[in-house]
Amino acid sequence: MFTIEELQEKITHAIGELPVYHEPDGLYQPISYTLGLGGKRLRPLLALISTQLFGGKPEKALPAAIAIEIFHNFTLLHDDIIDQAPLRRGRETVYKKWDINTAILSGDTMFAIAYGELAKSDPEKLPALMKVFTKTAIEVCEGQQYDIDFEKSDDVNIESYINMIRLKTAVLLAASLKIGAIIAGVPEHYAEYIYSFGENIGIAFQLQDDLLDAFGNEALFGKKTGGDIVSNKKTFLYLKALECAGKNETEKLRSLYSNKSQDDHQKIAAVLDIFRQAGIEAYTNTAILEYYNKSMEFLSKLDIDEIALSPLLKLANGMLNRNH
Amino acid sequence: MFTIEELQEKITHAIGELPVYHEPDGLYQPISYTLGLGGKRLRPLLALISTQLFGGKPEKALPAAIAIEIFHNFTLLHDDIIDQAPLRRGRETVYKKWDINTAILSGDTMFAIAYGELAKSDPEKLPALMKVFTKTAIEVCEGQQYDIDFEKSDDVNIESYINMIRLKTAVLLAASLKIGAIIAGVPEHYAEYIYSFGENIGIAFQLQDDLLDAFGNEALFGKKTGGDIVSNKKTFLYLKALECAGKNETEKLRSLYSNKSQDDHQKIAAVLDIFRQAGIEAYTNTAILEYYNKSMEFLSKLDIDEIALSPLLKLANGMLNRNH
Repeated sequence: MFTIEELQEKITHAIGELPVYHEPDGLYQPISYTLGLGGKRLRPLLALISTQLFGGKPEKALPAAIAIEIFHNFTLLHDDIIDQAPLRRGRETVYKKWDINTAILSGDTMFAIAYGELAKSDPEKLPALMKVFTKTAIEVCEGQQYDIDFEKSDDVNIESYINMIRLKTAVLLAASLKIGAIIAGVPEHYAEYIYSFGENIGIAFQLQDDLLDAFGNEALFGKKTGGDIVSNKKTFLYLKALECAGKNETEKLRSLYSNKSQDDHQKIAAVLDIFRQAGIEAYTNTAILEYYNKSMEFLSKLDIDEIALSPLLKLANGMLNRNH
Repeated sequence: MFTIEELQEKITHAIGELPVYHEPDGLYQPISYTLGLGGKRLRPLLALISTQLFGGKPEKALPAAIAIEIFHNFTLLHDDIIDQAPLRRGRETVYKKWDINTAILSGDTMFAIAYGELAKSDPEKLPALMKVFTKTAIEVCEGQQYDIDFEKSDDVNIESYINMIRLKTAVLLAASLKIGAIIAGVPEHYAEYIYSFGENIGIAFQLQDDLLDAFGNEALFGKKTGGDIVSNKKTFLYLKALECAGKNETEKLRSLYSNKSQDDHQKIAAVLDIFRQAGIEAYTNTAILEYYNKSMEFLSKLDIDEIALSPLLKLANGMLNRNH
């Protein structure tokens, strides 16, 4: 059995071997720049771990795993245009370093390259792989569109928010695991269990991220906190506060989220104060635990011993900053 | 054997049945709008005609044909952002009617939907179909990038221009035919012959379009002429004129293409004058005929009788506005 570090090594090597150093330079330089930015390579890792978990050879899942990573990076390229994000992993985003047109076209090429890598998988598995990969790609776009829509909408509730993060974040994690399972050749219902595990852990992961964005320790979190509050993002925390806080507090919260000319620090402090009074941290931790427990229920259906499960559990707990 | 009209009917019906009326509206409305704009549906038609030509059932090629049409429309969505084009088929482009972000994200979704349709093809053929489809998608992006690069470059020659239009336009026509051939189950070298036929006829088609943009009859051409001249596009006509015209004329031509503050009508007239003096219309017609003849050579290698070839020839000659 390969360790997480050994699997990561395989992923890094495979990404380094990708045919992304062609002409024209204007198209391929932003692609190799993007893939060279690194990142945790979480999704391909989930795919390889899943294959290994079900007794398959991780090497067989490598093309599909790389396809997922390229797809993920392609969505970041286009999302950064949409979100006007200047930085990604501490470096300039492609649309900033080059321009919007470059980010569009290099992104499109990456999407095609992703399918090209996927197609290197076992031909017998290809139809099933195409199905989950394409369904997921469409869902990720739907999630991004809901995220855009929610910015302008006053009609967002917790249910629609959870559905948005499910589409935007969780389904790709789930699909990575399912793709690994398909390549290992497991029965359909096993592939569905590991998918549902990933979907629930993915939602927990995003809620944890929302929580850390508000209450995290900046040094441990690795980025500045309060970003979601400054950009008026209607996260679980905000929506829960609208449900739970008193009339005065909810009015104040709405006003803080609609007033554009205010000091960022004061705004963050005022919003966090309302969140604290309404006990939002505890509510969010409860929700995270619920999704985490649900994910573990699906995992237990697999009847796989703990030793074999350990790399997956280690990764999942790492995602949630859990030490147990 | 189905007529062109019958095959077109199948394509129109299949496009009408596509699953593009989902939520969120913000994502899917631009997609159904785009697919509803119509157009000649030339590429899917080539795929169906090719399948039929090689004795296959056109219905079997329908998912792949629709995939090609969706892919083509996706590229238009993103190209219209890049080219800042306000109109497409007489209607507002998506990025104008909605916004850039919508055009990016709806386009991305269309690309995924295209692969989803392709994956409905015979599973045994899927690896080969994926290969040509993905290679072509990447090449189309490369062609678009060269087109962007050439705008700012003084180092474009006829060879690099032909390579650009080959990538941007011809390879997708060629791939449509090859995909039809693969689905009919022809030997590999036959699929290559029909591909090369398409590649050459595609280059002839684009050169014809360049010629009509300069010298066409506006009523017959269906759009205003002189657009390439106004936008300083370094077409075959321009590059050939730089090769053939006298020193004074080439200097004047370069100056006309770099001076930004000039009357469009006067500029068009002056450029056409240089083109006429240098005999560019005849040179271009010769080049078109050369590519046309090359395409016919590849077609003759197929050893297929003229009756079976007639729909393809009719379509190819129609593309080139030829009556013979």
